[in-house]
This record gives sequence, structure tokens and C-alpha cells, in this order.
Amino acid sequence: MSGFTAAGYPKAVPLAMARRIEDAHGRGEKFAVQIWSGASTGPELDGALAKADGIEFRMPYNSDPTARDKINSGKIEYLDMHLSQVAPMVWEGFLGTEDIAVIEVTGIRADGSLIPSTSVGNNKTWIDRAQKVILEVNRWQNPALEGMHDIYYGTALPPHRVPIPLVKPDDRIGEPWFRCDPDKVIAVVETDAPDRNQTLPPPDTQAQAIAGHLLEFLHHEVSMGRLPSNLLPLQSGVGSVANAVLAGLQTSSFPPMTAFTEVIQDSMLDLLLTGKLASASSAALCLGPEAMQRLTDNMAELHDRIILRPQEISNHPELIRRLGCIAMNGMIEADIYGNVNSTHVMGSRIMNGIGGSGDYARNAYISIFTAPSTARNGAISTIVPHVSHVDHITQDVQVLVTDQGLADMRGLSPKRRASLVIENCAHPDFRPLLKDYFDRALRESYGLQTPTLLSEALSWHQRFIDSGSMHV
Amino acid sequence: MSGFTAAGYPKAVPLAMARRIEDAHGRGEKFAVQIWSGASTGPELDGALAKADGIEFRMPYNSDPTARDKINSGKIEYLDMHLSQVAPMVWEGFLGTEDIAVIEVTGIRADGSLIPSTSVGNNKTWIDRAQKVILEVNRWQNPALEGMHDIYYGTALPPHRVPIPLVKPDDRIGEPWFRCDPDKVIAVVETDAPDRNQTLPPPDTQAQAIAGHLLEFLHHEVSMGRLPSNLLPLQSGVGSVANAVLAGLQTSSFPPMTAFTEVIQDSMLDLLLTGKLASASSAALCLGPEAMQRLTDNMAELHDRIILRPQEISNHPELIRRLGCIAMNGMIEADIYGNVNSTHVMGSRIMNGIGGSGDYARNAYISIFTAPSTARNGAISTIVPHVSHVDHITQDVQVLVTDQGLADMRGLSPKRRASLVIENCAHPDFRPLLKDYFDRALRESYGLQTPTLLSEALSWHQRFIDSGSMHV
Ligand SMILES: CC(C)(COP(=O)(O)OP(=O)(O)OC[C@H]1O[C@@H](n2cnc3c(N)ncnc32)[C@H](O)[C@@H]1OP(=O)(O)O)[C@@H](O)C(=O)NCCC(=O)NCCS
Ligand SMILES: CC(C)(COP(=O)(O)OP(=O)(O)OC[C@H]1O[C@@H](n2cnc3c(N)ncnc32)[C@H](O)[C@@H]1OP(=O)(O)O)[C@@H](O)C(=O)NCCC(=O)NCCS
Repeated sequence: MSGFTAAGYPKAVPLAMARRIEDAHGRGEKFAVQIWSGASTGPELDGALAKADGIEFRMPYNSDPTARDKINSGKIEYLDMHLSQVAPMVWEGFLGTEDIAVIEVTGIRADGSLIPSTSVGNNKTWIDRAQKVILEVNRWQNPALEGMHDIYYGTALPPHRVPIPLVKPDDRIGEPWFRCDPDKVIAVVETDAPDRNQTLPPPDTQAQAIAGHLLEFLHHEVSMGRLPSNLLPLQSGVGSVANAVLAGLQTSSFPPMTAFTEVIQDSMLDLLLTGKLASASSAALCLGPEAMQRLTDNMAELHDRIILRPQEISNHPELIRRLGCIAMNGMIEADIYGNVNSTHVMGSRIMNGIGGSGDYARNAYISIFTAPSTARNGAISTIVPHVSHVDHITQDVQVLVTDQGLADMRGLSPKRRASLVIENCAHPDFRPLLKDYFDRALRESYGLQTPTLLSEALSWHQRFIDSGSMHV
Repeated sequence: MSGFTAAGYPKAVPLAMARRIEDAHGRGEKFAVQIWSGASTGPELDGALAKADGIEFRMPYNSDPTARDKINSGKIEYLDMHLSQVAPMVWEGFLGTEDIAVIEVTGIRADGSLIPSTSVGNNKTWIDRAQKVILEVNRWQNPALEGMHDIYYGTALPPHRVPIPLVKPDDRIGEPWFRCDPDKVIAVVETDAPDRNQTLPPPDTQAQAIAGHLLEFLHHEVSMGRLPSNLLPLQSGVGSVANAVLAGLQTSSFPPMTAFTEVIQDSMLDLLLTGKLASASSAALCLGPEAMQRLTDNMAELHDRIILRPQEISNHPELIRRLGCIAMNGMIEADIYGNVNSTHVMGSRIMNGIGGSGDYARNAYISIFTAPSTARNGAISTIVPHVSHVDHITQDVQVLVTDQGLADMRGLSPKRRASLVIENCAHPDFRPLLKDYFDRALRESYGLQTPTLLSEALSWHQRFIDSGSMHV
């Protein structure tokens, strides 16, 4: 299925499927499907199909609340993947065969090629690999999107892979349309339905504090000569904090920056509008209704400065490393040694998925993770002795930022990291507890490279499950 | 310092330094240094300096037993890094300044350029960045090594990075010598001392069983059309199991294969000698004395088929992804969900370091991890409910192999992975305990994406610390 964030996903076919599935279930028949997408989608797809108990297996990313509940109650098998790896692994034949591709497009051209819509995701791969293709032509999508997309047709299986010829974030290396064998198209459905991205709330004080620390750090790096004056291509993750950090850049004095990222959220569009950002490359336009209107109103000015790419390109390790992206991603929790959990609440309950955060964090010029220092009204410390699940190992996390402050961990050994993270990032309510843990670990740990008290390491999470709070 | 495995490291200067440091300590003076290298080195360097308490900070890798003890007792601060990231981060200015480079070479040419020795590691970067350079010219090294090296001078800082023009594992893209500003050279020391790699013991039955399962898998992948008949470039990690797996390939019927890896161990040399391997690219020749003799005896035949590169190239994500390497690395433990610990015994005591395993595992065509199913004479299960430290997240681990069998986890959700790993990889003595844990986790876990019992997750490790065994 097409879709990356609640943008560019099919809106009619999945809803109709959900009804069919409900009918079948009403008759006592089994009916459930495997859903592969770019990343998350909207309520008409993951929402409706999950509600109908119609999803048996889902990959590579989900953020729909109904589907999330079904995953966490064991009703949907969910494979949480690095977004850059989905297309290659499908081509490599590792994930089974693809029966039907359902792809939203903005239009079909006379020669049969397809004008993509608000997300590109894995659509090229889905169209190429599917036995059959169903197209949803969505009249709601702005025809002026045409030409914004850059579909690279140079990928191959090894030993035939070659360098990807992109050296600047706004290089165009492909074609504006999808190629599609007309013989595979079994249906064309016309729709007129909006994408369903939400307008993000204005940044709260915590998010503003995080943005402030981060901006100060970036200015400092420029003044030390470790970053060019207009920085390096920015990557910004999903969620409210990421959006706030970008909003903070609006007040910065950097010369026009660039973005090489996987989603363009509201405040990134605003950076383009004010000229703070010269261009932005991504896999999807994740814009709330008002931001989408601002895009429409300024299409002539913005059209050539936005490049929408397949996620195997937007998230490609080769390109992220080459361009030297500054990666800024949200997290659920980090531990004192700088390991990050982006996905699993209390180690077992999935929030969304790793998405592209691993593609970016490992290959970035600087990898930054952000979160408020507490969650659930202060009941949870987002800095813990030992993360309950690891998505980003300490090597892939150079800077941690909370509302309390910033820890620049580059070049530091684990023990030095721990002292800094406790001091700079932990909430004062939890700081003494963390210090106490670390002090005792320094005395009692089996080894002193990464001092750990195994019987206590995950006790904070267990305490939360038992009592609703990590406080003692 | 030069050095990658016990090959190509300086042998005289560090020994002399160790004596100076001991003398200073004898006089009650403080004296300790920061050591940066390619990877591990030999006893004259890490061993002697650690023994003298002369190392204050060490990066990016160590496997010397004395240094390991000092790290684990908190006397050396150790930064365990992805090997591909050392050179870029030094250039980026993130790790501080480099005072003196001490580099072993095979010879100095009339124009001042340097003939590298048995390892390349980070030497190009050390020479370029150091304020002062000391050269050790080691007469023991075979002059015929000249021409084997391929030093790429095309790296840059972003925004000036360009594609690395390597498309086949044996492409040569650089020069056979290091450039070196003669004005920086403050001393040239002549030595005549052997590298100190050990001859690895012949594979035991467990290692043979692991090799057998892995070979069967590779044959199966070829027969399914998911791998070319001569496979894809092999990467093989360090240690005895890795060596045994390669020895197993000696009996395989694949047409001549290639290797793109970071160390050439004894049995990889033997694969070159029998023609099973057409060529091998790596950052170091990690050969025991007998294997080194075999190389010398067959130099004419092997010279052009071995390419020694800087580790930022041998381990570059761009190249590993492009070439589609088959990554085979050793591990300390894996959990039922396929997270791998390569570094920390009981979560806190470091063994060696992550080395290049992360560079390869994340970017490989297929990422395989191997270990005997038990350690310490059966007291420890290498398959555990929850790894005590994570180096490789579940997304980066596609295949697990122990002497018990192989788990192909590609495309599987966490719960399906768990069942397979317990069934195929765990030792029968621990299988019922793992099943029991997993069954209860399925009922009692907070969320069911990755079922976890937090209060028990690390209890196996604690039990080992308390009782010397993971058995109940
Ligand atoms: C980690 C992530 C969920 C944070 O999102 P966010 O919107 O910035 O953060 P918020 O602080 O609003 O938290 C989101 C939710 O997680 C919960 N949460 C955050 N930290 C938590 C913690 N330590 N323990 C328990 N719950 C926590 C919040 O309570 C909130 O839950 P709610 O929606 O029920 O209120 C988000 O960044 C993500 O999904 N990341 C992984 C994917 C990714 O990084 N992609 C980047 C490239 S696409
Ligand atoms: C993980 C690693 C140590 C395994 O090495 P190996 O030689 O194949 O494995 P062995 O089974 O011989 O184990 C080595 C040691 O670890 C110990 N060990 C292994 N598994 C263990 C476990 N689960 N718990 C405790 N100790 C364990 C063994 O007892 C042995 O210790 P000893 O030397 O005191 O006897 C090695 O592969 C490594 O260092 N990997 C990280 C770096 C890397 O992967 N580089 C690859 C690219 S360079």
C-alpha cells in the first residue's frame, strides 16, 4: 500500500476491504491480510482494517492508535523495520511475495506513467514488484505536485549496485513519475478525500526549552568551526518535540539551511516559507490542513525547493553519511550511558516503530536525541539506569537533550557519559536516585566498563507498572 | 598509533614509553597517555603500557588481556567505537587533537612516501592529523607487501563528500603508499620484530557444527535464487568461531568467492591459497606465524589478490551496502528476540569492543551472528531472555547460528522470532527455561509486541554472578 505518515495512502480500497472483512467475520469466515506500506498511514487504512481485525501482519511502521492496541494485545504481528531497508529486502526476496499494490496517485499520464501524490515511500518498489496494481486517483491532491518528485530508477541487486549520484540534498537524480506496466493495473478508483495529518499543537514550554538548548549547541558548534555557518543538511524526526525544535530554528540567524529528511512536518514548511531553509528533501509531506493550505497558496515559490523521494533514497546510509546530516530524533527514554529507546514503552509495548531513526542516527554527522525529562505528568523519568529496550546503541547517540539541558557525549567513555547525562539531562526529582544508582554501580558492578546493577537495572520500569510511578 | 589486530603496530616506541612511565611512577610522578589506534594491537603496545598503568584513555578497540583487566577495574577509560567512524570523527574535530603519530611502516621511499606494513587501520588519518610523526621501520616486515595497499585520498568533510568509486571488492581506488609531510617526522626508529598474532586452534566440534549449519544455509539461499552461485562478498569477524566458519568454506563447492572484510585471519588466507576465494579486501593481515609463512611462500601468487585498505573504507556503510556483503560475526549472547551482545559479559565487563561488527551488520545483505550455545563449560546459555547489553538491535540480526542450529529470522515479528530461536538455537539444557519465560511473558507482559518480564529479564545474568551458573 502507498502511504508514509497520513499522506498519500489509499483511502477507498482499504475502507471497502475493511467492510468486506467485517462481513466475512460476521459469517464466521476467516479473513485477514498482510499490510506492507512506506511507513504509517491514516485512519481509513490502518485504523479501519485494524478495527475490523483484518490485519494479520504489518510492516514496517505504524502509528495508528487502533492498530497499536491490537499489536500490543497480540492480535497483529508487527515487524518494525529500518525504513531504508524495506525496498532492498523486498527485492532481495527476503520478505515473501507481494500480491496487490494499492497506490494513491495524483494523476495518470497519457503514456501510463503515474504522478505521485503527497508521499513517495516505497511506491516504486510496490508497483514494480506487485502481481497486480490498483490505483486510487485522488482528485483532492493538488495537480501542482507534479514535478516535485524525484523517483530514482538506478537501484539494483548486488553485485550490480553502483554509487548513488547524489551529492547535494536538493540534487534531482531520477524522474518525476512512476513507471507502471499497464497490464498489471486491474482497477483505477477515483477518490476525493483529504490526507489526515493533524496540525501539531504549538510547542509547550518543555519543548521550547529543548529547542533552546539545541540551538545554543548548534551555534556553539559553528563558532568552534565544527559546523559550516549554514549547518549541514537537517534531519528531523516525527512528533511534537521534533516539530518544536524546528520551530525554534525560525528565530536562528543561520544563513539558509537545507534539509535531507524523511518527513516534512508543519514547521519545516514554515522554515521554507521564511527562507530559513533553502530546500527540503523527504519521502512525504506530513502537513496538517492549515500547513497544506499554506503550501497550496505558495506553490509557485515552493515547488522546486521541495523534493520528494523514495524512502530507500531519503534514508539511504550512503547518502546520509555523505551529506553529513544533523539528525534530530525524538525518544521514549535514554539511559545514563546514552543508549536510546525510541519504540517500546516499558520494554514491551510498542509506541510507533524505529522508522528512519536508525538510518539517520548511525550515519549522521551528529546524532541528537530529544525528549522531555519526564513523561506522564512527572511519574516517569525519561533518563533511566538502563533502557528497557534498545533502538540506538550508545555509539549512535552523540547528544542528548531534555528540557533540563544538553549532554554532549562525543568522545566520552561510558562512565564520563553517565555523570554528564545525570547532571545535565535528568529531572531534579530523579537526579539523586540516578546518582545513587550510579555510585553503587561503581562499587558493586561485575565489571566497570559500563557499571550495571542487574537486579535493579529495570526496576524503575517495574515500579511504574506496579505503582503507576517511577518515584520510590 | 598504527595497529589493527596484532599486526602493523609500533613495537619499540611504546615499549620505551612504558619504561619511561614506570620510571616516572617510581619517582611518584603522574604520567599516562591517551592511545588511539586502528583496532587492537600487540603486547608491546597495549600490553606493556597497560601493565605500566600508562594508559589514561583508550579508543576505539582493545583485545589485550592486561588492558582489558584495567578497563574492567576502572583504571582505563575506554571508548568503544564503530571502526568506520573513527577517522571521520577525528576529522570532524569531535575527539580532540592528536599530538604524535607513531606508525610502523615497511619502508620509506625516496620521495618521502611510506610503504605501509601489515595493517592500514587509521594510519592515513593519524599521519595527516598529527602535529608530529614518529616512524618505526620494521625490517621484519616483508618488502613484498609493497603494492598490496590501496590508500584512498578522496575523503572529505561534508558538504564536500563525494561517492566512493568502488564497485567491486577488489577495485583499487587509491595509492599504494601513505603521503607524509617530512617536516612533521621527528624520529625514525628501526626495528626488527615480528607481529604477534596467534595461530588459532583447529576448530572444535561446536565450531564445526556452527560452520555446518551456516554452509547449509548459504547453499539453500543459492538454490532459492536469493544469492549468486559464488555468493556475495564475505565479511568474517574476529575470533575462533569466525575462523572455523571460514575453514568450513574450504569444503564448499561455490565458484571462486570474494571477501570484503576488515581482517584476514588464517583460514581466509587458506581460502585464497586453494582458490576458493578469488580476492580479499581488508584493513589488516591478522595471520599467525605459520600462516604468515604461507603468505611469504606464495607471495607472487597472492600479492595482487589481497588489498589492504584504510578502515574507513573497508568498513564504510556506503560500500558494505553497495557490495551486499554477507556479514558473519561472533557474539557473546543473543536474546530470544534476536538482539545481540558482542561486547559486555554480564552487561558490564567488556570483552573486546564492537569493532566493525556494527558497520557490517547494519549494512549487510544478510547479517549473521554465531556463538556456541553455551559458554564456560555449559554454565552459561548464550541464548537468554534479554541480553544484558545491546550492540546489535534485532533489526540488524537476520540469522542466528549456534551448534544447535540456525534461526532464519528474516521477515519475522518478535514473537515468531522468539519461538524459532528457542527451538533452533538454544541448548537443550536451557530450552525449557527459555520456553517457560516466554510463555509467562506472553501472559504477563505489559505489552505483547516484545513480551518481557522486567523483574526476570536480567535474572539469569545475576544468577551467574551469584552462583557461577545460569542453571536454576
Ligand atoms: C519517540 C516518539 C514516540 C516521541 O514522540 P513525541 O511526539 O515527540 O513525544 P511525546 O513526548 O509527545 O510522547 C509521545 C507519547 O509517548 C509517551 N512517552 C514518552 N516517553 C515515555 C516514557 N519514557 N515512558 C512512557 N511513555 C512515554 C508519551 O506519554 C506520549 O504518550 P501519549 O500519546 O499517550 O500521551 C517519536 O519520536 C517516535 O515515534 N520515534 C520513533 C520513530 C522515529 O524516530 N522516526 C524518526 C524518523 S521518522
Ligand atoms: C564476541 C567475541 C568475543 C567472540 O569471540 P570468539 O573467539 O569467537 O568466541 P569464544 O566462544 O571463544 O569466546 C571468547 C571469550 O568470551 C567468553 N564468552 C563467550 N560467550 C560468553 C557469554 N555468553 N558469557 C560470558 N562469557 C562468554 C568465552 O568464555 C571466552 O572467554 P575466555 O577467553 O575467557 O575463554 C568476538 O567475536 C568479538 O570480540 N566480537 C566483537 C568484535 C567484532 O565482532 N568484530 C568483528 C569485526 S572485527
